[in-house]
Amino acid sequence: MDNAGYCNESFNSLQSGTSDEDMVEIAGATLDFSSTDDVPPLDRDYCSGYNAHGGGAQVLNGGTKLMDLLDEPVPGVGTYEDFNTIDWVREKSKDRDRHREIASKSKESTWALLHSVSDAFSGWLLMLLIGLMSGALAGGIDISAHWMTDLKEGVCLNGFWFNHEHCCWNSNETTFQERDKCPQWKSWAELIIGTGRAFAPYACGSGIPEIKTILSGFIIRGYLGKWTLMIKTITLVLAVSSGLSLGKEGPLVHVACCCGNILCHLFTKYRKNEAKRREVLSAAAAVGVSVAFGAPIGGVLFSLEEVSYYFPLKTLWRSFFAALVAAFTLRSINPFGNSRLVLFYVEFHSPWHLLELVPFILLGIFGGLWGALFIRANIAWCRRRKTTRLGHYPVLEVLVVTAATALLAFPNDYTRTSTSELISELFNDCGLLDSSKLCDYINVNASKSSNELPDRPAGSNVYTAMWQLSLALVFKMLVTVVTFGMKVPSGLFIPSMAVGAIAGRLLGVGMEQLAYYHHDWVIFKGWCSPGADCITPGLYAMVGAAACLGGVTRMTVSLVVIMFELTGGLEYIVPLMAAAMTSKWVADALGREGIYEAHIRLNGYPFLEAKEEFSHKTLAMDVMRPRRSDPPLSVLTQDSMTVEDVEALIADTSYSGFPVVVSHESQRLVGFVLRRDLIISIENARMRQDGIVSTSRIFFTEYTPPQPPSSPAPLKLRSIMDLSPFTVTDHTAMEIVVDIFRKLGLRQCLVTHNGRLLGIITKKDILKHMAQMANRDPDSILFN
Amino acid sequence: MDNAGYCNESFNSLQSGTSDEDMVEIAGATLDFSSTDDVPPLDRDYCSGYNAHGGGAQVLNGGTKLMDLLDEPVPGVGTYEDFNTIDWVREKSKDRDRHREIASKSKESTWALLHSVSDAFSGWLLMLLIGLMSGALAGGIDISAHWMTDLKEGVCLNGFWFNHEHCCWNSNETTFQERDKCPQWKSWAELIIGTGRAFAPYACGSGIPEIKTILSGFIIRGYLGKWTLMIKTITLVLAVSSGLSLGKEGPLVHVACCCGNILCHLFTKYRKNEAKRREVLSAAAAVGVSVAFGAPIGGVLFSLEEVSYYFPLKTLWRSFFAALVAAFTLRSINPFGNSRLVLFYVEFHSPWHLLELVPFILLGIFGGLWGALFIRANIAWCRRRKTTRLGHYPVLEVLVVTAATALLAFPNDYTRTSTSELISELFNDCGLLDSSKLCDYINVNASKSSNELPDRPAGSNVYTAMWQLSLALVFKMLVTVVTFGMKVPSGLFIPSMAVGAIAGRLLGVGMEQLAYYHHDWVIFKGWCSPGADCITPGLYAMVGAAACLGGVTRMTVSLVVIMFELTGGLEYIVPLMAAAMTSKWVADALGREGIYEAHIRLNGYPFLEAKEEFSHKTLAMDVMRPRRSDPPLSVLTQDSMTVEDVEALIADTSYSGFPVVVSHESQRLVGFVLRRDLIISIENARMRQDGIVSTSRIFFTEYTPPQPPSSPAPLKLRSIMDLSPFTVTDHTAMEIVVDIFRKLGLRQCLVTHNGRLLGIITKKDILKHMAQMANRDPDSILFN
Repeated sequence: MDNAGYCNESFNSLQSGTSDEDMVEIAGATLDFSSTDDVPPLDRDYCSGYNAHGGGAQVLNGGTKLMDLLDEPVPGVGTYEDFNTIDWVREKSKDRDRHREIASKSKESTWALLHSVSDAFSGWLLMLLIGLMSGALAGGIDISAHWMTDLKEGVCLNGFWFNHEHCCWNSNETTFQERDKCPQWKSWAELIIGTGRAFAPYACGSGIPEIKTILSGFIIRGYLGKWTLMIKTITLVLAVSSGLSLGKEGPLVHVACCCGNILCHLFTKYRKNEAKRREVLSAAAAVGVSVAFGAPIGGVLFSLEEVSYYFPLKTLWRSFFAALVAAFTLRSINPFGNSRLVLFYVEFHSPWHLLELVPFILLGIFGGLWGALFIRANIAWCRRRKTTRLGHYPVLEVLVVTAATALLAFPNDYTRTSTSELISELFNDCGLLDSSKLCDYINVNASKSSNELPDRPAGSNVYTAMWQLSLALVFKMLVTVVTFGMKVPSGLFIPSMAVGAIAGRLLGVGMEQLAYYHHDWVIFKGWCSPGADCITPGLYAMVGAAACLGGVTRMTVSLVVIMFELTGGLEYIVPLMAAAMTSKWVADALGREGIYEAHIRLNGYPFLEAKEEFSHKTLAMDVMRPRRSDPPLSVLTQDSMTVEDVEALIADTSYSGFPVVVSHESQRLVGFVLRRDLIISIENARMRQDGIVSTSRIFFTEYTPPQPPSSPAPLKLRSIMDLSPFTVTDHTAMEIVVDIFRKLGLRQCLVTHNGRLLGIITKKDILKHMAQMANRDPDSILFN
Repeated sequence: MDNAGYCNESFNSLQSGTSDEDMVEIAGATLDFSSTDDVPPLDRDYCSGYNAHGGGAQVLNGGTKLMDLLDEPVPGVGTYEDFNTIDWVREKSKDRDRHREIASKSKESTWALLHSVSDAFSGWLLMLLIGLMSGALAGGIDISAHWMTDLKEGVCLNGFWFNHEHCCWNSNETTFQERDKCPQWKSWAELIIGTGRAFAPYACGSGIPEIKTILSGFIIRGYLGKWTLMIKTITLVLAVSSGLSLGKEGPLVHVACCCGNILCHLFTKYRKNEAKRREVLSAAAAVGVSVAFGAPIGGVLFSLEEVSYYFPLKTLWRSFFAALVAAFTLRSINPFGNSRLVLFYVEFHSPWHLLELVPFILLGIFGGLWGALFIRANIAWCRRRKTTRLGHYPVLEVLVVTAATALLAFPNDYTRTSTSELISELFNDCGLLDSSKLCDYINVNASKSSNELPDRPAGSNVYTAMWQLSLALVFKMLVTVVTFGMKVPSGLFIPSMAVGAIAGRLLGVGMEQLAYYHHDWVIFKGWCSPGADCITPGLYAMVGAAACLGGVTRMTVSLVVIMFELTGGLEYIVPLMAAAMTSKWVADALGREGIYEAHIRLNGYPFLEAKEEFSHKTLAMDVMRPRRSDPPLSVLTQDSMTVEDVEALIADTSYSGFPVVVSHESQRLVGFVLRRDLIISIENARMRQDGIVSTSRIFFTEYTPPQPPSSPAPLKLRSIMDLSPFTVTDHTAMEIVVDIFRKLGLRQCLVTHNGRLLGIITKKDILKHMAQMANRDPDSILFN
């Protein structure tokens, strides 16, 4: 019964809320069978490009229209339906054909030469536009969120100019815990997130798991459309200013990818090619992180390490450029008013000592444990949301969590402030003039005026702060688990960093006091004499933040680069690296998946993970369809089937492609035809070509033998056949097949034995097989 | 006549100076046909792993020796000869089999479990060792080079404790120009480079082109052996201290790769698997740059962007770890005595203005022009060296260039100092107390005591320095062209950076004076009022250095990261990026190849460039052998050939592998057998197996049909056959074939038409075809 699905990558039950407009836009060309007009020139380029991939020679003689009506490309051939997997090889081939055509034409006229030059630069221009647009949007988001900090939690119904405190002051409830319940107060977030939800099924969540899936070659129409962009931008402002435990980097990646996708429509090269578009989206992901943190290089590495599937060097350079433009645009807008590119600029005055690596590694272990625990807890919570009635009330859930967060966060100074400010304060090294509670040290030797402060005993306020921070740590940990995955735009970086920064600061202050009171201990001897500045608690906070972020996302290089772009702390690479590596090891030992992969699996997206090795000893013949007990593979023959036969085969099966063989007896493989192309071509031929009836023979051969005069006109379909289908033998190890699928981005692969066609393996078969091998339900994949 | 070479990746004429010892070590297992001893357990793992890849089931029943003598793996099967290309798919398969076996055994006993754990951690341990060893070596090299600065140019024959100046002072030649000719002085460099050369054919040059080639899957035995390491280390110290215009980063990459290769011998996992070893070498390349510049992240990116061929995420993390350990080791050794990780630490006090991007982009254009020009001039010079008699006297050439460099460099202050010091001085921002000539400004407003100095008019010494720098620029440009590619260890980073830094400083000082004297010009208005510190010439030097380095190597992201790790200038990413991108565009417009690719092509290494797209519209059938006019492909049949027939075929042809078909008539493909494996197996069977004579039939089938009693015993060779050879159809576009070769690291690929075997394409065929398409002599590839 499994057989029914093979070669059918359709994915219908994911979500059905796509907007029609985006579907048309992303499809690149609308299907218009009724029209008998000429195909517009651009479409012709496009389709002939694809045909040339299959046929090799058609592009050369396809130009003269009257001579070769039959070779005229049919609109729609070579496009994809929604929730399908693209064929990277075919897309890249199409693009190269396009490029070759432009290059060969460029010698003919000045206009064509200009076209060729503009085509070559269109990629860079697109990057520039994405950078500018994303930078401007991010600036706008920052400014709006800042402005809304005054109206932070809503509008006062007594008078919108009152801020929250004034508004509620007038009501009779004066205790802190009751403040949020004052009846005159109405949350903007509640008001608009609720309405936004209805329009935007795709605007919620982090977006990174979905973007990873799209980048790996899956099509989800509307996920990166302009409506999504608009709603996501607005809701992001609200979510950030609502005080929920979430960050904005994931949503900003999504916003940048939407910008990239929308701007792709300006350039034919990118509008019409799914593979090229994905290169742009990879760069856009880098832009997102670049604007979220002012970390252009970290963004590029994040895209490379965490998000992208196909990341050629060309994309590396382009992402780099786009990330730079975006960061620069954001800097010019200057939303934080400090004209720095970085969010949490810190400057530490004292170097760290080798022995301090021990607490740094402890922080790494903490980060790893927290990461693994967080992923489990969060996935368990999200699974509960999917399976129980909780998931039916997303708006209510958001409201309850927001209210609970506000209620619980308010009493504690360190949870009441915005998470970014908290991190900033925790990273900060205490100067003499700092007035925060965390810097309330007793100045034993106050005469010193230099910046270099020795370790000092902590004042009472520091101890209070420690308690509050400990409570804040527990609170943040709990609330982040519940928040991430809710139906609001939510990033994970900032909350994870906050957890780590709190833990790090606690450890740092502890170490500092230990060193102050026990500088004669053997571990401090030799490097920490009394009156010296040995321990910098802010550095511990920074290391802790890196460790927790690493544990959750399993980033390493990109994490360290982001951290030092964030803080400017180039001298602290070694502690950051030590913590990041430890954290990754510990977390990996407890569970292989990072949070994004876990969410991909939870949602059942068809994503072939490149990081995990396929370690089972199965062969292609164990995975291919048909299985031993199934009926044989449905194939077309190259010259013996009629239109009727083929239509019957199409009606009887739901496979999205059919191999073409020499004859049923020999089973020697000739090529592969996609169902969609076949349907379109036959329909088109029946309408536009004389003499094509149900009994017409279909020929996939190069030369059509002369037909007897009485028989109907033959239908030549060689041009829609892929003449170079990928094949493997039945004895090929699955690990090699998986490798080929990953590296070449295949959609399906045919299996042969001693030169005879035996079966087919699709990406879905592989994913199901992998799920089966991992003792998971194979049907959880793709149909969720 | 071209046919004679197909499927023969042999590469005999490159260099013949390999040491036998390294050959044995790198081969992994010596071939010993005379021995009838048991195969040692580790070798059995290794070979059965390989067989399992082909056969699928052999690994399971290969353990019982008495039952299955014929299935016993033959030592030597699955190894490579020198100057051959490895098959990545096969190597990775072997490793996965090995891993699976260890994992399945680990459940059996505690010892096996420990073995499994140690195996999992051996990669990290290896990285640690490489980091420690490379860091220590780099520290040693720095210290030795520093020490030899006193004995810089040699030893005084009158008394070795005299330094050069004292020694020559006593002689009667007192003019500067004549100093180097004082007869008592003897150059260490001359003495030892000359002798070193004789031992170390591989120790010369940058090494990066060769390492790129090795990483792409080519085998050059001894290139990364311990002798090369030793000689390279010593000669590098001499070369760096000799005052030649060369840097140490290329040689340090080579040194680190030697460390990596040597340390691989400690772990079976890496010793016996060429693909795994290359992962380690990729990480080692990162370590090299990390220790050369104290730039661990830049090193990892350099390895990713510039050097590596196969760089999975796992390697990214490991390189990162190794680079960190190495940088940290070097820092602990502290060779520069400033306890900084960075080589040229700079701190600028004033931000840059948007309008300054114009001069920065000008520097980018200069860098691009210089890069393109340098590559052409250097390649022309190297080609002349290869083709004329110049190449016969490498030692003389080194001596002449050294002498000429010393002679010409001496009169100019800026060429006399070491290049690193020069760069350091050029990057430096002038403080009030700086006494160098470059900082001889007239203090108009000397009362200010803060660090923030306004732009000041230049004093006469600055103008002198400008003239000297201009001369130094021309000198450096000329001498670098001649030096790079000489038979001494030589890097390119430092000389390229020096050229750019000089140009940048000149432009910077020019801009500064322009702004000082013409601050009322419209371009300066609004941001450069009199008395403000507008222009920082040191920043221009930094940007210029990045631009020139970018032009020569075509790095982008890694370049910027290295630059800011070098200088700590996180605030200057945008200028650096702008210059790097411009430089790359300009240089790419004038010539597609970077210096390393150009040298690879000059030397004819079999390297399939991943950056350049294959843009021609040829099909697999145009490239495959045999060509139309050639005799048909030499194939084996699966069950009809005798030992005699096969031996005759081996003797008659030089192909390094043969396809196996069902029968000559059907030409249906069964598998692929390597020549080397075939020869070893037949020889082995004749010696060790009863009844194998010349008339024995060879069977590649799964089941051997019962033989008539009179006939000799059959020889079953299915276990050495690759049952999953890669195939493409004859209509596959070459661009797709090239893509498959690159991404999967293939060695050969079979071509079929409608299920029948038609021909074969090897990596060499592709390289020759690409050379032909680019109108180059195809025979320059591989045989040079």
